[in-house]
Amino acid sequence: MKRNKKERQSLLIETIQDNPFITDEDLAEKFSVSVQTIRLDRLELSIPELRERIKHVAEKNFEDEVKSLPIDEVIGEMIDIQLDSTAISIFDVKEEHVFKRNKIARGHHLFAQANSLAVAVINDELALTAKANIHFTRSVKQGERVIAKARVISIENDRTKVEVISSVNNECVFKGEFDMFRSHSPEQ
Amino acid sequence: MKRNKKERQSLLIETIQDNPFITDEDLAEKFSVSVQTIRLDRLELSIPELRERIKHVAEKNFEDEVKSLPIDEVIGEMIDIQLDSTAISIFDVKEEHVFKRNKIARGHHLFAQANSLAVAVINDELALTAKANIHFTRSVKQGERVIAKARVISIENDRTKVEVISSVNNECVFKGEFDMFRSHSPEQ
Repeated sequence: MKRNKKERQSLLIETIQDNPFITDEDLAEKFSVSVQTIRLDRLELSIPELRERIKHVAEKNFEDEVKSLPIDEVIGEMIDIQLDSTAISIFDVKEEHVFKRNKIARGHHLFAQANSLAVAVINDELALTAKANIHFTRSVKQGERVIAKARVISIENDRTKVEVISSVNNECVFKGEFDMFRSHSPEQ
Repeated sequence: MKRNKKERQSLLIETIQDNPFITDEDLAEKFSVSVQTIRLDRLELSIPELRERIKHVAEKNFEDEVKSLPIDEVIGEMIDIQLDSTAISIFDVKEEHVFKRNKIARGHHLFAQANSLAVAVINDELALTAKANIHFTRSVKQGERVIAKARVISIENDRTKVEVISSVNNECVFKGEFDMFRSHSPEQ
């Protein structure tokens, strides 16, 4: 459905508030307009581009929010967390994270980002990984930014299942399901 | 079955040649004698203790054997490799590998040891992880030595399945099945 400019811009503000990580491309598709139109809308509304928005969110400090480990033990930069629900982190793939030969990111770094996010999202002093089922869906190259999103999908007694999906430019690069052990069952 | 000392010592030599990583405890059980007896046998036969045997094997350099990555990209120390068949590495868990709070090894380090061994065992210039199914079967503490053994369980076209079992003092701490992508199918 085409909207007039005023309607669209007001919905745009709302949409970006809900999901600061949405790309201009996704917004264009959502509102059936060109990417260029979205850029102009953002300029008029003084909404910074995605990269800047991410940086801004990243300046928040989640030290007090995370319970299961000190924030500096999270691999990547935590940019959002709702305990026992969702968490997001970003990880910039640098020279030290790739195979020398082909500049492809080594699996254990993507795993470390996802796994530490799965630990961090748990609302408990102790969280350990019991099992994981992971897929590397496309290779990540040096210089790319990986956004990992963790979502708690079930909590049963001392076990919590966390799904983590990591993407680069909105394309899924890693998917994992983590079975986490926690020391306390949350109150129902 | 109890054997006389001569028989036992000759079998002992054979057993240790087959598996240099077998512990005195396992040998004692195997031959239905005390650990003390095994130690005395080793002394008489001048067979060094397990720790020394591992060190000795570790002095070999596998630079020329490994094809899929430079040896210094293997996490842990490679101590044996038969391309497209089996590989073994050891990894000493130090302060930088554990959670500060409880000194338990972080999952991604055990994963990194196993995953890089699964890459190294592949007889190809290019090997990438597609999927993995992993279990952390007991926590590993700072100061412990993890021995990972990789075994190729199937090769089909550009896919190779590798099983990795990591243990501390012969007790399984990590088990993983890795689906590896390779650039060439090996000749049949």
